[in-house]
Amino acid sequence: MTEDFPLLPLVSDRCKNRNPVYFWQDVPIVENEHKDPIQLVGGLPNYKFFPVTGANVQLREEPFKDGNDDLLFQIKDVSTRDDEVDIKNSFQYSDQNGQIELRNQIKEFVKRVVKPVSNDWDIVCTLGGLDGIMKCFDIFINPGDTVLIEEFTFTPVLNNLVEFGGIPIPIKLNNLIKDHKIDYVDELENMLNNWESIHPNLSKPKMLYTIPNGHNPLGLAQSLDHKKRIYQLAELHNLIILEDEPYSYLNFTKYDETPNYNLTNDEFINSLNPSFTTMDTTGRVIRVETFSKIYAPGLRLGYMVINKALINLFTKSGELLTRAPSGFSQIFVNNTIIKLGGIEGWIQWITKVRNEYLKRKNHFINSLMKTKAYKEGYLTPIDPNCGMFVSIIINIEKSNEFNGINYNQLMDKFYINSAQIGVLAVLGRNMSVKSEFSTERSNFIRTAISFVDDVSILDLAAQRLSDATCKLFE
Amino acid sequence: MTEDFPLLPLVSDRCKNRNPVYFWQDVPIVENEHKDPIQLVGGLPNYKFFPVTGANVQLREEPFKDGNDDLLFQIKDVSTRDDEVDIKNSFQYSDQNGQIELRNQIKEFVKRVVKPVSNDWDIVCTLGGLDGIMKCFDIFINPGDTVLIEEFTFTPVLNNLVEFGGIPIPIKLNNLIKDHKIDYVDELENMLNNWESIHPNLSKPKMLYTIPNGHNPLGLAQSLDHKKRIYQLAELHNLIILEDEPYSYLNFTKYDETPNYNLTNDEFINSLNPSFTTMDTTGRVIRVETFSKIYAPGLRLGYMVINKALINLFTKSGELLTRAPSGFSQIFVNNTIIKLGGIEGWIQWITKVRNEYLKRKNHFINSLMKTKAYKEGYLTPIDPNCGMFVSIIINIEKSNEFNGINYNQLMDKFYINSAQIGVLAVLGRNMSVKSEFSTERSNFIRTAISFVDDVSILDLAAQRLSDATCKLFE
Repeated sequence: MTEDFPLLPLVSDRCKNRNPVYFWQDVPIVENEHKDPIQLVGGLPNYKFFPVTGANVQLREEPFKDGNDDLLFQIKDVSTRDDEVDIKNSFQYSDQNGQIELRNQIKEFVKRVVKPVSNDWDIVCTLGGLDGIMKCFDIFINPGDTVLIEEFTFTPVLNNLVEFGGIPIPIKLNNLIKDHKIDYVDELENMLNNWESIHPNLSKPKMLYTIPNGHNPLGLAQSLDHKKRIYQLAELHNLIILEDEPYSYLNFTKYDETPNYNLTNDEFINSLNPSFTTMDTTGRVIRVETFSKIYAPGLRLGYMVINKALINLFTKSGELLTRAPSGFSQIFVNNTIIKLGGIEGWIQWITKVRNEYLKRKNHFINSLMKTKAYKEGYLTPIDPNCGMFVSIIINIEKSNEFNGINYNQLMDKFYINSAQIGVLAVLGRNMSVKSEFSTERSNFIRTAISFVDDVSILDLAAQRLSDATCKLFE
Repeated sequence: MTEDFPLLPLVSDRCKNRNPVYFWQDVPIVENEHKDPIQLVGGLPNYKFFPVTGANVQLREEPFKDGNDDLLFQIKDVSTRDDEVDIKNSFQYSDQNGQIELRNQIKEFVKRVVKPVSNDWDIVCTLGGLDGIMKCFDIFINPGDTVLIEEFTFTPVLNNLVEFGGIPIPIKLNNLIKDHKIDYVDELENMLNNWESIHPNLSKPKMLYTIPNGHNPLGLAQSLDHKKRIYQLAELHNLIILEDEPYSYLNFTKYDETPNYNLTNDEFINSLNPSFTTMDTTGRVIRVETFSKIYAPGLRLGYMVINKALINLFTKSGELLTRAPSGFSQIFVNNTIIKLGGIEGWIQWITKVRNEYLKRKNHFINSLMKTKAYKEGYLTPIDPNCGMFVSIIINIEKSNEFNGINYNQLMDKFYINSAQIGVLAVLGRNMSVKSEFSTERSNFIRTAISFVDDVSILDLAAQRLSDATCKLFE
């Protein structure tokens, strides 16, 4: 790592002091070494010990449609193509950061779609989004370090942060309930400028963890202006921006617009919300991606866009905590991309996934808006910008029972109603960093539109949610 | 966990105090809940979002032989068989401890082959052998805790132990160089009985980490009597026995015996060295297995045989540190076993892998014994009981340059010779827990017989190793 890289002083003591032993290293210097020595070092089985010699894989044409013979590809035991992953390599012990062929594909994708502005970025594969986040905490968090997090968030990250002794600090989302917006620059600026007086016993934050597009649970995207101002604050206060982006490619138009389901790749890319990496000249943005939403969660495969100076830290963290991602997962993803015609074909597949989610989203929002509970003003869906979730505000302040503080009791009542009527969603408060901090903004639920077999079930869900809500206002 | 389970007091504070949040939990109690509610909770994509609808997989007949049409199987998107893993489930977020179908197969295998004596065992899947070991350290090791380890070992485990603040304590292998035996009961008994005087500043060990069969690097197996006495000591001192068994199924006859390459399953099972679990009535033995050596390392898939009382601890450890193993890996392993005819067919496959390693081992030992260096008494191979390694003692005490303390210098010289002549192996000292503790027993190298394409290369390797050794005695 170069000495002047600004994230260097932020590396955790644990990772700085990590000094792994490697039994195949620590050998004397050899002059005039043999050019082609017989390798008896590593306990690697010859690939002809592996029970599989090949596979033919059938791809879909698009989500919810079967494939055809044009969409068959072969997984080979030995490939001569330099972009193809073969059984010989992927079934073997392999590169901690992912097979080189897959990393090359991902890099091409990132260059084409994400467009980081720096010249010093690279990618490392992970075992999925949360794995990437865990490794970031491993690398940067000392016990007692603080991390800024949107007050509602993907709470499993909190478990990983706390494990390393980190302290999550919620950022208030002021305009959430009223304007359905994520807009916290002023809030953040105030927190950072007055840190010592607001949190006299806590160290200044090292990191902002954010889900900028298709925020989980809210589905919202930050505006470009919001991001630019956040990045300026990060520069000023030497914050790492951990950009978690599982949903950014599932980007939506508004519910009342006519969608274009035939986007060209250029149109699709231009429609995406810009990443923090497009403004990051310093290397402080770490982008976390996953194949879970656009390929399959069972892969346990994702990647991170990071500054090259950090690669070695991620390698060591991975060697210790997880070892390499499954080669079986990597061979499927890499060779699927090839079969689809490379990155351009892969972008087309992603667009098809996005189309299906967009259809579901618009259908569900429209369904909700036809319900009694919506018409009476008892519930308000937040039309999401991206993702697979629709959050729905329950306007409990209109209930006769609302007394200004009983958010939790009324949301409990709502939950019981909905579970009895037959629809289960996540309570907003359960996705808060600190439920007591967020009580007055937690009168919402998160619904996932991803799992049901058909949109008709979303109609039924909307009806049941309406019934459960109306019962609260009886 | 039952209160009287003897390993309970040994659980680490970290794991005892772990209190993860789950956003889908923490909801009010619901009476008269709907029987079949619409699930909008988890962000699970419907399986029809996954780009793969199926695959045809070609298996080998045996290592180094291709397959035929009888050895083709289909991976289906939806299966109705209750022992088959399908795309719908394996490509999805899935059970932290492995797909139920795979766990059932593994349980059947363990019952048939390993035969734990207790009725309270179960299995949990891991992301490979080292992952299982890491999770054991996570669960039991507090900073400052000591773990007993054979003085030569698979050193990557040390990195994981040290990460949790554990202190590895090497056990001297007295009879290694002279008798090629692992025999340390007296040594261990003395250490445990006189712990306070030998290690006045260290806490008494919680755990013994051992590779009982096909010890890495030595290839040796502990005798049944040795194991029984070790187990008694573990009972007496409340030690956890962490039994690492990547190599036990690759079990060998002696180099000068005529091998039986047509073992029935019963003969194969009877030929295996008994596991510590066959004598464990208490639940203190944790057996670590992996599919890396008998299927493929790129799977990142293994499992542990544990007492049921520990399952919840492993679940939480996995949720935090790794998430579930790849579903793509699981579908291949599970459905390969089915295609081979279930557990009995799977055991046949393992026997074939064992046969190939046995052939290689005997070939290499015989090759080494034909060399000048062997005939002169400069090198002595240790005929291994199991595994994929042959360790070779370099009898440096016969060198004119040997002065009683210069082990490292002479082994350096040997290494340089061999790298120049064209053969690379691992220096014994690099596989020691503490090299200064083991200097006088580290005049050996570890060679892997697994990777070369053909045994003829092992002949060449033997020749080169002999040349490199002889050069040391010139």
